[in-house]
Amino acid sequence: MKQVPIGVSARHIHLSAEHVEALFGPGYQLKPMKPLSQPGQFAAEETVAVIGPKGRFDKVRILGPARSRTQLEISRTDSYVLGVQPPVRESGDIAGSPGIELEGPAGRVTIEEGVIIAARHIHFHTSEAAAWGIADKQKLRVRVRGERPLIFEDVIARVHDTFALDMHIDTDEANAAGVKTGDLAEILDADN
Amino acid sequence: MKQVPIGVSARHIHLSAEHVEALFGPGYQLKPMKPLSQPGQFAAEETVAVIGPKGRFDKVRILGPARSRTQLEISRTDSYVLGVQPPVRESGDIAGSPGIELEGPAGRVTIEEGVIIAARHIHFHTSEAAAWGIADKQKLRVRVRGERPLIFEDVIARVHDTFALDMHIDTDEANAAGVKTGDLAEILDADN
Repeated sequence: MKQVPIGVSARHIHLSAEHVEALFGPGYQLKPMKPLSQPGQFAAEETVAVIGPKGRFDKVRILGPARSRTQLEISRTDSYVLGVQPPVRESGDIAGSPGIELEGPAGRVTIEEGVIIAARHIHFHTSEAAAWGIADKQKLRVRVRGERPLIFEDVIARVHDTFALDMHIDTDEANAAGVKTGDLAEILDADN
Repeated sequence: MKQVPIGVSARHIHLSAEHVEALFGPGYQLKPMKPLSQPGQFAAEETVAVIGPKGRFDKVRILGPARSRTQLEISRTDSYVLGVQPPVRESGDIAGSPGIELEGPAGRVTIEEGVIIAARHIHFHTSEAAAWGIADKQKLRVRVRGERPLIFEDVIARVHDTFALDMHIDTDEANAAGVKTGDLAEILDADN
């Protein structure tokens, strides 16, 4: 049985180094608070305010380290609060996605694009993927037996030798299934 | 192919006649605003405020007609806002569920129980269920091909000669699947 731990992603933001400075001040470095499941990634002590046309979230957690481009990941539920219509995308694929306003202690930044709903995916270390016969970008069916059992289809495999086994879903998906971080999912097969 | 239209249920409340009067005044009758998919059911013009230990929703739609017992149906996401921990239940099965405070223009009511997350279900008219070989209370697997395809398991069949064909899911489930009211779902088979 191909079992994978679930990691539930609440709304969060990745900032470019430029935007870290614009929001927190020149030369500012994010302070790691907690390591994440993927090696080298961390939840920072810092948060930013995210301001949409309809509503705002005052404390959105920043995940580090800084990336080449700023990216806000929210749920569909969050998108209704903010008043934006983000597409479901893989991380990094932000072309044509909506922008939003960010506010930190040292300033404001308006990004022209970068708001997405993260497509559900599983991180595999190269060796695990090989052992299970799973290829990078492959779409998988994954059963989750929480309080409200369901099978996620089109779960994207992401394979890399820096990755640790983890299935990332957002809060809407976690709540629909009745699961939380640390629960286990089962890969049923490969769709294509 | 056994296709069923989807109806997405946002948070809503059913009130007892007694609570209608407590919240809106003696002799008050709910005003139907819009018929629902199930014959005789309606969204009322009136809303109530729902007040939990952690947060509140000011305008929760009342669905009529009045029922024997008051029942608030919310999503798991909503439950975190309110600060209550409702179970996933079939409508009417409220024993041991949390209570909450309600506020209307004429008064306040505290219910001792009645807050639930509605278990996903499909309403079948008796003749449709017979044609498809589906029994009341049967658990079904249902595929939803929205922006984020998934298969809901343990979807409860509810069969009655006053029901109209409709699959009811909540906003977390709709957002996790990327579907909206009027989209179609497909019954795959019966689990038991």
